[in-house]
Amino acid sequence: MDILLQYVVKSFDRSTKVIDFHYPNELLQEYNWELTDQPQNLEEILMHCQTTLKYAIKTGHPRYFNQLSTGLDMVGLAADWLTSTANTNMFTYEIAPVFVLLEYVTLKKMREIIGWPGGAGDGIFSPGGAISNMYAMLIARFKMFPEVKEKGMAAVPRLIAFTSEHSHFSLKKGAAALGIGTDSVILIKCDERGKMIPSDLERRIIEAKQKGFVPFLVSATAGTTVYGAFDPLLAVADICKKYKIWMHVDAAWGGGLLMSRKHKWKLSGVERANSVTWNPHKMMGVPLQCSALLVREEGLMQSCNQMHASYLFQQDKHYDLSYDTGDKALQCGRHVDVFKLWLMWRAKGATGFEAHIDKCLELAEYLYNIIKNREGYEMVFDGKPQHTNVCFWYVPPSLRVLEDNEERMSRLSKVAPVIKARMMEYGTTMVSYQPLGDKVNFFRMVISNPAATHQDIDFLIEEIERLGQDL
Amino acid sequence: MDILLQYVVKSFDRSTKVIDFHYPNELLQEYNWELTDQPQNLEEILMHCQTTLKYAIKTGHPRYFNQLSTGLDMVGLAADWLTSTANTNMFTYEIAPVFVLLEYVTLKKMREIIGWPGGAGDGIFSPGGAISNMYAMLIARFKMFPEVKEKGMAAVPRLIAFTSEHSHFSLKKGAAALGIGTDSVILIKCDERGKMIPSDLERRIIEAKQKGFVPFLVSATAGTTVYGAFDPLLAVADICKKYKIWMHVDAAWGGGLLMSRKHKWKLSGVERANSVTWNPHKMMGVPLQCSALLVREEGLMQSCNQMHASYLFQQDKHYDLSYDTGDKALQCGRHVDVFKLWLMWRAKGATGFEAHIDKCLELAEYLYNIIKNREGYEMVFDGKPQHTNVCFWYVPPSLRVLEDNEERMSRLSKVAPVIKARMMEYGTTMVSYQPLGDKVNFFRMVISNPAATHQDIDFLIEEIERLGQDL
Repeated sequence: MDILLQYVVKSFDRSTKVIDFHYPNELLQEYNWELTDQPQNLEEILMHCQTTLKYAIKTGHPRYFNQLSTGLDMVGLAADWLTSTANTNMFTYEIAPVFVLLEYVTLKKMREIIGWPGGAGDGIFSPGGAISNMYAMLIARFKMFPEVKEKGMAAVPRLIAFTSEHSHFSLKKGAAALGIGTDSVILIKCDERGKMIPSDLERRIIEAKQKGFVPFLVSATAGTTVYGAFDPLLAVADICKKYKIWMHVDAAWGGGLLMSRKHKWKLSGVERANSVTWNPHKMMGVPLQCSALLVREEGLMQSCNQMHASYLFQQDKHYDLSYDTGDKALQCGRHVDVFKLWLMWRAKGATGFEAHIDKCLELAEYLYNIIKNREGYEMVFDGKPQHTNVCFWYVPPSLRVLEDNEERMSRLSKVAPVIKARMMEYGTTMVSYQPLGDKVNFFRMVISNPAATHQDIDFLIEEIERLGQDL
Repeated sequence: MDILLQYVVKSFDRSTKVIDFHYPNELLQEYNWELTDQPQNLEEILMHCQTTLKYAIKTGHPRYFNQLSTGLDMVGLAADWLTSTANTNMFTYEIAPVFVLLEYVTLKKMREIIGWPGGAGDGIFSPGGAISNMYAMLIARFKMFPEVKEKGMAAVPRLIAFTSEHSHFSLKKGAAALGIGTDSVILIKCDERGKMIPSDLERRIIEAKQKGFVPFLVSATAGTTVYGAFDPLLAVADICKKYKIWMHVDAAWGGGLLMSRKHKWKLSGVERANSVTWNPHKMMGVPLQCSALLVREEGLMQSCNQMHASYLFQQDKHYDLSYDTGDKALQCGRHVDVFKLWLMWRAKGATGFEAHIDKCLELAEYLYNIIKNREGYEMVFDGKPQHTNVCFWYVPPSLRVLEDNEERMSRLSKVAPVIKARMMEYGTTMVSYQPLGDKVNFFRMVISNPAATHQDIDFLIEEIERLGQDL
């Protein structure tokens, strides 16, 4: 317990390192991690805990900007500890009465916030956004061709899904798994801000229909992974309505903005979706994992996935069986992911989440305002960030004098990886980089930890310059 | 913290109830679970924690026999708390260095125990046995027809999977999801002990081939959910070899027996499988969830699932990228499930798991020996239990005098549900019941909690008789 609490305190302390980096081989050799036949004593076990935490990334550190999920909420953490202690499964009310009710209450609230009348509909907490998106694809297919459950894809025409070229790779992964195939996922062009272009969507739908294929799903993104872009949901909804296609919104990253009166307009049209992925473990700071898939039509998940296993879902039990959620899931045993979100919501209130989100977006704008005209920085796209994603190149002095040609691009592409490697070796901060399309490696800054401050943003800029000026 | 530790202490105390049962509507009304706009204070939050635990099932209670996952291991719990505190994701070494290495070490050890030379192969911890089985099906299909990833099921002949009629429903669920269709899962007959009959398997494979279909997967079960039966793996392996079919072993429940020198013979032949599902969260008492899918051929998971998302799996990072596990998963973010198993293994040693398993099996035999000749009990199948599953009817005095006809069957079918409902209302113990095939509702006793004793088994029998004798 002391070891854990010490770690928590350290995570919040800016004078500690974000990471004590070691290469995989070093780490494997530095310590004996092997599993043995003989038991070890308590002292040794505590030492393992200390060692594990010593080399862990402090994801709650205010200068850890590497992923969409950062921060460490103390109520969320306590709730996760309670969940571990209760050590049960979500499949029936019988063995998880409170958690099953809390899932019911929480999903309903989330549907109300999306804007579905009376919070009607269905949903589930699933192990991550990729699985939530896969659920959406599965349910959309079942809605159009229920016979696919028994007969498989052989019984249906070629199905086509549409999503933007900036969307998350889980759409393709899902299509591969579900037997649809990645070739049947059409990537729609985006504008320079990373938003899906509706006219291209419509053109590609018509094209697919002309070939005799059946468009069955459009997955719009609310908050893309790299640019933080919001697809124009209203325009997408119109097209889906016109062509009778299931509209899914992958709001894994952007869903949190629905909690903010100031920012929720960015998701206008989400209320017209048939399904929505929303990960409270990202922008709302809930400990990992907490991802919801919300579905507008009730009963569909159940028909799609149920197998009537009588040994698990006995029909002659003495309570109202509509609370047994197991048969609508792909999983059998399902981890309790709801309690941390529910307890944090009670502790912060919706207003607390709103303040959290507004603050993170304000910090992103602060960063944007500093670097947009600062020497040595180039923005990857113009304009204020819509989410907390700020994408930029740092151009070291030696490159600033070069003409904008291939050699410069090639040298620029190597800058971010080196700065990142140095950041990790010093352990002072972490931020992500990646190439995208024809754009060479650039930094993608994201902020989801409300413990971050203006000073932490200032520190990041200074650190990039300190570590990159000689390149 | 005090609230959680108090709960743990109570869970181990036989004088406390296993469950304080309330009907869903009662529980919804008894307490205000709604999510609000305004924050609540610490006192209120602590009260919510207390209330949640008050109505929770004490899954660690030595008289909770309801599910395959029971018990509460203190080292496992501490490890799960550490996991929550570290709050990270498994996709890259960059953000989970230690956990990624521990997954590598632990999966290798599990493969060694299965018996694959040098522990070679691949694997992943996935969110439950159903998803592990789905992975196996996905990889088996990809191995035979790699083009299915891009082209979908339309590009391949009709694929057929085989599993026993006693196998877990996740095989059908997986087939429905993957676009194979439940009609293409052939259920093979079992003998009276619930073991797959190899001659029926071979007959059905030949039949499928004659129809022009392609058998691609046999999923044998090591430890069925209800009977705890072990399919004859050696015979299944011979058939799979003969017809060149992927052999999967669903050892979600039975895998733990591999840790016991006394019982591992029941899985003889598992070393010839191409993939194995093994859930340490069941028989090994690891907190939920901890399920492994092990694959004999290295690299196959990666080719099957990778999408090369450059923003997540940058190829120009400064460390050995072979440790990044994310692209072989179906999920993007993946919960850290390995640490609890690893730390428990260090604390108990393999010998500790062996003692745990031997003890639970001894308790099952103890139960079997008491009831096999006791008045008022009928065994669902003859012979000593192979796993900890003991399946039986309790026949109340009023039914003992009846002839063996439909009326008796109909009345007998109502006995277990009433006793179970009474158990839950008294809160004294919990055990599962279900019908199966032509067998009406019977009790399925399982023991996976090493805290259970002979006295707890005696108590269960007395309680069944106390609650059922008037029926």
